Amino acid sequence: MTAIHHVGITVSDIDRSIAFYADLLDGRVLGPYERSGPRIEAVTGYPGVVIKQAFVTARSGPTVVELLQYVGGSDVVLDPDNGHVGAVHVAIVVADLDARLAALRERGIRSVSDPVTTSAPMQGFRCVYVLDPDGVRVELVEPPPGSAGWVS
Amino acid sequence: MTAIHHVGITVSDIDRSIAFYADLLDGRVLGPYERSGPRIEAVTGYPGVVIKQAFVTARSGPTVVELLQYVGGSDVVLDPDNGHVGAVHVAIVVADLDARLAALRERGIRSVSDPVTTSAPMQGFRCVYVLDPDGVRVELVEPPPGSAGWVS
Repeated sequence: MTAIHHVGITVSDIDRSIAFYADLLDGRVLGPYERSGPRIEAVTGYPGVVIKQAFVTARSGPTVVELLQYVGGSDVVLDPDNGHVGAVHVAIVVADLDARLAALRERGIRSVSDPVTTSAPMQGFRCVYVLDPDGVRVELVEPPPGSAGWVS
Repeated sequence: MTAIHHVGITVSDIDRSIAFYADLLDGRVLGPYERSGPRIEAVTGYPGVVIKQAFVTARSGPTVVELLQYVGGSDVVLDPDNGHVGAVHVAIVVADLDARLAALRERGIRSVSDPVTTSAPMQGFRCVYVLDPDGVRVELVEPPPGSAGWVS
């Protein structure tokens, strides 16, 4: 089976991001772990790197978000606006978009717009982008009633 | 259920990226579609925007990658190195990492390293990052034999 195992996000403050995603996914948190040594240096391509790593898994469903903080800081901070080449967003299925969005806004989390209804092949989905603590776009998508939930 | 619906990637050349992800996922391609008008302007936050959009779905499994090209060009091109705050990578489960990596390398696709074996809670997974046509990191992960395949 080909499947998405996880989506990994490089963050500036792992504790802040853990709180954000644990709330968003009603999630279980694994970590944070501190990683260093030859294997992590090889896989990242950064000699001497030290990383904090955590996973947030949805209580139901297979969603796993990995959070990575480069200890000592990243030398580059991206502006992950969706209009920028190389920006990646993750879209999460929610059953109750208006209520979820209202609750997020109450806690000061920004959205790009109000929910918008999309066309085929995601016919009738309601979608909105919210910004994670580093500005990474997280799309909340609410399938139409009776939908199988994915693209047609 | 909370689940990842899709991972969306903003690309500079949608045809090139469709070819990359269709091969990687042995995927079915929906689109590209051209999108414009008030709803797409609202959801992206870009007045007057025109976007090409495609979906690549794995033939087996629920993986959906969305590709977005801003027609007329993006004003910003990110360097989506995993060490940069705001970088996002997508990790795809593969059953045959060495063979897949060899085939990708034969077509000139670069990897950050050779495969590395990871520690808990992804105990025994073999992982490697490859670069998509815009440098976005795609992690190929091979679960250990008998693994349920996700984090423990």
